Amino acid sequence: MTDPAFKHPAAPAALAALRPLMGDRISAGPSLRALHGAGESWLPAAPPDLVAMAETTGEVSRILATCNDLGLPVIPFGAGSSIEGQIHAPLGGLSLDLSGMARILRIGAEDMDCTVQCGVTRQRLNEELRATGLFFPVDPGAEATLGGMASTRASGTTTVRYGSMRELVLGLTVVLPDGRILRTGGRARKSAAGYDLTHLFVGAEGTLGVITELTLRLFGQPEARQTLLCSFPDIAAATATVVAALHCGLGLNRIELADRLQMQAINRHAGSDLPDAPALWVELVGSPPAVAHDLGVFQGLAADAGALRQDIAESADQANALWRLRHSALYASRALRPGLKGISTDVCVPISALPECIDRILAVVAETAIPAPLVGHAGDGNFHLVLLFDPADPKETGDARRINARLVEIALELGGTSTGEHGVGLGKKAYMADEHGPALDLMRQIKQAIDPRGIMNPSKIFDV
Amino acid sequence: MTDPAFKHPAAPAALAALRPLMGDRISAGPSLRALHGAGESWLPAAPPDLVAMAETTGEVSRILATCNDLGLPVIPFGAGSSIEGQIHAPLGGLSLDLSGMARILRIGAEDMDCTVQCGVTRQRLNEELRATGLFFPVDPGAEATLGGMASTRASGTTTVRYGSMRELVLGLTVVLPDGRILRTGGRARKSAAGYDLTHLFVGAEGTLGVITELTLRLFGQPEARQTLLCSFPDIAAATATVVAALHCGLGLNRIELADRLQMQAINRHAGSDLPDAPALWVELVGSPPAVAHDLGVFQGLAADAGALRQDIAESADQANALWRLRHSALYASRALRPGLKGISTDVCVPISALPECIDRILAVVAETAIPAPLVGHAGDGNFHLVLLFDPADPKETGDARRINARLVEIALELGGTSTGEHGVGLGKKAYMADEHGPALDLMRQIKQAIDPRGIMNPSKIFDV
Repeated sequence: MTDPAFKHPAAPAALAALRPLMGDRISAGPSLRALHGAGESWLPAAPPDLVAMAETTGEVSRILATCNDLGLPVIPFGAGSSIEGQIHAPLGGLSLDLSGMARILRIGAEDMDCTVQCGVTRQRLNEELRATGLFFPVDPGAEATLGGMASTRASGTTTVRYGSMRELVLGLTVVLPDGRILRTGGRARKSAAGYDLTHLFVGAEGTLGVITELTLRLFGQPEARQTLLCSFPDIAAATATVVAALHCGLGLNRIELADRLQMQAINRHAGSDLPDAPALWVELVGSPPAVAHDLGVFQGLAADAGALRQDIAESADQANALWRLRHSALYASRALRPGLKGISTDVCVPISALPECIDRILAVVAETAIPAPLVGHAGDGNFHLVLLFDPADPKETGDARRINARLVEIALELGGTSTGEHGVGLGKKAYMADEHGPALDLMRQIKQAIDPRGIMNPSKIFDV
Repeated sequence: MTDPAFKHPAAPAALAALRPLMGDRISAGPSLRALHGAGESWLPAAPPDLVAMAETTGEVSRILATCNDLGLPVIPFGAGSSIEGQIHAPLGGLSLDLSGMARILRIGAEDMDCTVQCGVTRQRLNEELRATGLFFPVDPGAEATLGGMASTRASGTTTVRYGSMRELVLGLTVVLPDGRILRTGGRARKSAAGYDLTHLFVGAEGTLGVITELTLRLFGQPEARQTLLCSFPDIAAATATVVAALHCGLGLNRIELADRLQMQAINRHAGSDLPDAPALWVELVGSPPAVAHDLGVFQGLAADAGALRQDIAESADQANALWRLRHSALYASRALRPGLKGISTDVCVPISALPECIDRILAVVAETAIPAPLVGHAGDGNFHLVLLFDPADPKETGDARRINARLVEIALELGGTSTGEHGVGLGKKAYMADEHGPALDLMRQIKQAIDPRGIMNPSKIFDV
């Protein structure tokens, strides 16, 4: 049963200890291990030694207690959609697959909240919610699990209105490395009772424990919505419109930015005839008179900023067509260099600094042969460049890494962060000292206090 | 210079060590100590041995390092408006008065954020912001400092719309017990870069370190606002209206509840002629057409729930007059038994559980001679009973404590919390084990990791 390719010496003992508990749901099979060792990441695969498919919080507790006794790394796994290497197993160990913990435990329609197991995906939850008129708004690009989204502090296009996982998780069930089961937070909308443990686990990327259940805020579907797409002569004009719209408190549900190259790529890929110019997709929501009012205000603000053209969706179909173009951005980008997957940058800066940040990094990009179309969640100051480099070409690979690193430097200079929503994993570790300074040592102290044997997703975010 | 009344043996050494640094700004004078030992709390005073008036983050760092070496407790002090004994010094030690750190360091109008020193009060900040059209929404009853508000995770009447300090603090400067100075969070609207240290210090009540600077989110003043007061036959009808209004996504800026006794007290105290019946004060905000629309919807929802009467403010003056009645609630309550100050309960429950929670506790209250008028932030599920008991009467004192304890039990049974916004301090410590279960041990582990000598506001929230 022992596999000579085990990376971690404690793997065989863990397999033997857990087999009676889990039967066929724990495996050292090579194909399952390979499936759990790469995910959507641009980083080289690093498969685990074992894969365990957990079904209950109690089972997670017994698995963690066992691995803790043996000193075996445990890497929580949801949908495998993280992109910075969060589910990689560089030291080997056990990939704890939680996708089978996918029950919706409670929907509180009156309280606009719900409790779910960690393996429920956001789409599944929203399908189940449809009959209630409620929905959960956080929409990362991937079909992610809610446990994974909490662990990477995910956000999406509607974060400008509803907040990210940081704002929308009310409480958690967490299993600590030694197997203790905790509940953090609760169902009350607010509490001043002691330390905020919920926020400690949200964004910890599984390095402090395993989230097995989440209580989430829900929202009522807005009565009306209106989409438009505005083209601008430059990024600064688009950003000025975003700032003005936020000041006015318009009912912005989404306000998404693309640069000239991205719009060219979209037009080429989709056959659309939008201007080859920086653009904002905007969705306004609220009551019908509120949306009508806000649309007028927004159009005025965009015109004041020098908008070249404003395409107003006249129907739900037209709105959907405009949003399909936005959602096709990644595929349109990749079509600029077929066969290349690219890597996505993820800095987030104060909104006033967006134009400078973008100008400065595009000047760096222009010195290379790498196409780098831009999309962004402009209302949050978060944008992504897809760096379409050829990983077989050492010069391009070096250039791509340099662009990524330089962009983080610029973002930090401007008061921003290296990652708005993708998290740190292995991919952004190198920037944590610059970003956090002495606070990084406090993170290490907390890690050591909660996970003294260092079994939880080791070597992610920082080294201890 | 040594005072025989020092409670802590290390106080004289700290005074001697810090006098060269601070001169007259450190004192063992009895009147200053008395001023720093009670605040607004209902608990018996517990003055510190020393009071130090800090002026800079660097100075806070040197004070903490000195006290850490000597093992002397340090109790951060802002405006002294906390009510659960957060600023009490039961073990003696040094009260670190931060009210002199009151500079507004930066207002970012474009980014709708600001950075302030911890001693700035919320009113001062809003006065400074007036010319920008921006404001900071969290409004606890007291003229509190923003550092204190962050430390107790304060909220207020507008939390239903904007969130509490939990949602609105973007970043902090914190001094750790050993004198290390950290920055947490930053100016980006969101970040997925590592552990959320900001939320660890927000609500920690000064037990993990001292907050010296805060970066806060700001908001644009709404274009229009409309106030109304609705009277209902019972609490359940009022609550049903709140739930429906939240579902509809109305632009609720505030939605405040009072019970029949509270309304009687207000009518008697202010000479108003509102129905002696449970009431909601409501403020709708947004664009003028949005507010007009939402007002119509709200009136319909209230009528559906059986509202007895709806008083719509026809002018800003009328709106102010209605809100003055709300703000007079505490004084009106105290006038029910002149000379008694009362203590305020603070549970918060899922909104659907509000009627049951209130019914059950009012049945307990009815078995005593204690009047207990109710006001609440209905949109958050948070309410306060002012228990007007005579502290000189042992029977009444016992009854008041029993009501408070029973209310916490009921709230926890209903999925709520012992404190929505006042914090734990000394007053709610006894409930933490029931509320948090095994999570309380994790709080202790974190406390011990960050403050191994236990100098930061010891014996608050929990005992180590």
